[in-house]
Amino acid sequence: MTVSPYTLHCQSTECQARCGEIATLHGPIQTPVFMPVGTQASVKAMTPENLVEVGAQIILGNTYHLYLRPGHELIRSFGGLHRFMHWERPILTDSGGFQIFSLQDLAKITEEGASFRSHLDGSRLFLSPEDAVHVQEALGSDIMMALDTCIPYPASRDEAAKATALTARWARRCREAQTDTGQHLFGIVQGGMYADMRLAAIEQLVEIGFDGYALGGLSVGEPKELMYELLAATASHLPATHARYLMGVGTPEDLVEGVSQGVDMFDCVMPTRNARNGMLFTSQGRVVIKNSCFQHDQRPLDPTCGCYTCRHYSRAYLRHLFQSREILAYQLNSIHNLHYYCSLMTGMRNAIREDRFLAFRRDFYEQRTVPVSAH
Amino acid sequence: MTVSPYTLHCQSTECQARCGEIATLHGPIQTPVFMPVGTQASVKAMTPENLVEVGAQIILGNTYHLYLRPGHELIRSFGGLHRFMHWERPILTDSGGFQIFSLQDLAKITEEGASFRSHLDGSRLFLSPEDAVHVQEALGSDIMMALDTCIPYPASRDEAAKATALTARWARRCREAQTDTGQHLFGIVQGGMYADMRLAAIEQLVEIGFDGYALGGLSVGEPKELMYELLAATASHLPATHARYLMGVGTPEDLVEGVSQGVDMFDCVMPTRNARNGMLFTSQGRVVIKNSCFQHDQRPLDPTCGCYTCRHYSRAYLRHLFQSREILAYQLNSIHNLHYYCSLMTGMRNAIREDRFLAFRRDFYEQRTVPVSAH
Repeated sequence: MTVSPYTLHCQSTECQARCGEIATLHGPIQTPVFMPVGTQASVKAMTPENLVEVGAQIILGNTYHLYLRPGHELIRSFGGLHRFMHWERPILTDSGGFQIFSLQDLAKITEEGASFRSHLDGSRLFLSPEDAVHVQEALGSDIMMALDTCIPYPASRDEAAKATALTARWARRCREAQTDTGQHLFGIVQGGMYADMRLAAIEQLVEIGFDGYALGGLSVGEPKELMYELLAATASHLPATHARYLMGVGTPEDLVEGVSQGVDMFDCVMPTRNARNGMLFTSQGRVVIKNSCFQHDQRPLDPTCGCYTCRHYSRAYLRHLFQSREILAYQLNSIHNLHYYCSLMTGMRNAIREDRFLAFRRDFYEQRTVPVSAH
Repeated sequence: MTVSPYTLHCQSTECQARCGEIATLHGPIQTPVFMPVGTQASVKAMTPENLVEVGAQIILGNTYHLYLRPGHELIRSFGGLHRFMHWERPILTDSGGFQIFSLQDLAKITEEGASFRSHLDGSRLFLSPEDAVHVQEALGSDIMMALDTCIPYPASRDEAAKATALTARWARRCREAQTDTGQHLFGIVQGGMYADMRLAAIEQLVEIGFDGYALGGLSVGEPKELMYELLAATASHLPATHARYLMGVGTPEDLVEGVSQGVDMFDCVMPTRNARNGMLFTSQGRVVIKNSCFQHDQRPLDPTCGCYTCRHYSRAYLRHLFQSREILAYQLNSIHNLHYYCSLMTGMRNAIREDRFLAFRRDFYEQRTVPVSAH
């Protein structure tokens, strides 16, 4: 029915990994791609110019947070989130579903939608699938997500089945509520930890027809092996004609595994949140910058890294800033971690184009066997 | 004896205001100048590139803080503060005296020096005038300050006289302790709120001979009128051949008044601290960004301002970031406030060069009679 905004450029002959492009109102996105999270209309501690410099092609905004503050009507009055926050590249907004469930115990789900309380002032609010789409239309994101219900881990088969069925009915209402704005709408596959239920959910969503498909409800506390199993069992069943998005994932290792299973899009707070906690990603693994072994270390965090932080600052200075709780610590650490994530994706795209993804993956793991220390 | 690093370029015919230049190891500084404060080897929420963009010519580091953490020997191992913090323009370091007195009640002053406790771990420490110079030599600042004793407000004449005499003896020891590094050393005029005592202190310091002279112990809680009185009674008695520095001052109004009395250098945490508290400076006066009148305001903070923040962001967005406690709020607000302070100094320098300082000063106050609001 609708034309897919996704164009496949090349497919690994070794695994499911693939390179492509997603067309959006704010230009194309090269996939596989990692999307930094800008929950409240700001990627924490980063200017938009910092984001461009680290190579971010698209960022994510959280509908739940923006709906509560500053409100979607305010953002609409600016012509959307892009002008409000001074970001000219694409934006994806989630539907608000995940936050409604994860930020409170008192969310009440009915056929009609989700009742919840504001985490800011306790006021009672209600979000229907139609509301979720209209709010995202006001935000003007390039990619909107259908409202889904989240399934806790663990959940019984019956519980998961009910939530998955409701998600499918909501997905149809979201698609029907959409007006002609040129924004994309992605459907979200639920199904808990039941692979067969997820495969059925994919069929239902494809029957409705979306501009892309996301795997939701993973990385919610289940063992890593289980997530990888479900990924292997489901990702390649998402239509190859459309973009595939693994929501809320994950570690650098998760990104490499996700790409090898054919995933095109990822988002996670990990690079920015860990940056603020002093945990930094390098090609050799993770660095806890407050460790005393870095006290006198004049070397850059990662001598092979070309980011602003590694070009100009030493481990000793980064440690000093972190120990002193200087705001610059959050800025420099966030720049480095997001540069790491975006560069990892660039490396994977290049490896796929040259059909050497498995070699790339092997190198990625081998570099991590040498721990980062002062010598 | 020594050649003054200060060169007078022009003198207002209307008042004491003057333009000049201070030569330093890291290049010349155009005066009058405002120095952003980078207490812990970072001007809070600002990258060095941000500082250059707002027009900062020189920044200040706090010897007390850097001595405690990360330690001057660590900074020496980097060849000084400049390389440690990636700042290539001049740096002035204070002597540590003010912090020793202001951060704790238990500082004990003897002829030999100051005993105090670390505010970080409570350890007992001692700083002599000689130590203060040697620590600053390790930091590699362009302008060092002599160790002074601070006089609380109010203080009896006797109390003030004793502290002022000790400051003079310490000043001589600082000058004698200095080695041949090319760094400048400034003397600090104390004397409490007693103008005659300050004039005598100036004579003593000039007799020792410093590379510049500072007025210390002002803006310590005394009424504003008293500070202006003392300024008028003393600033023009500082040698015209040397740079004059009014320490820890102040508001935009204070800078204008200080310049009109012939002051060349200022430093204050106000622009950065107020930025983090949501108080912003504009040509029309102060703005409290959280005020609800800015909620829907699409205009830049100050439509006449050319800073990064005003070029790209609205009052509504700045309010949203501040209400949401986003780190970007601190970054954007700090950029704006420091740009305001540095531009104010540029405006004053231009006005002095064109010998229209009093007209500039009149305009400065007149613009502030129109309050900043949404309409």
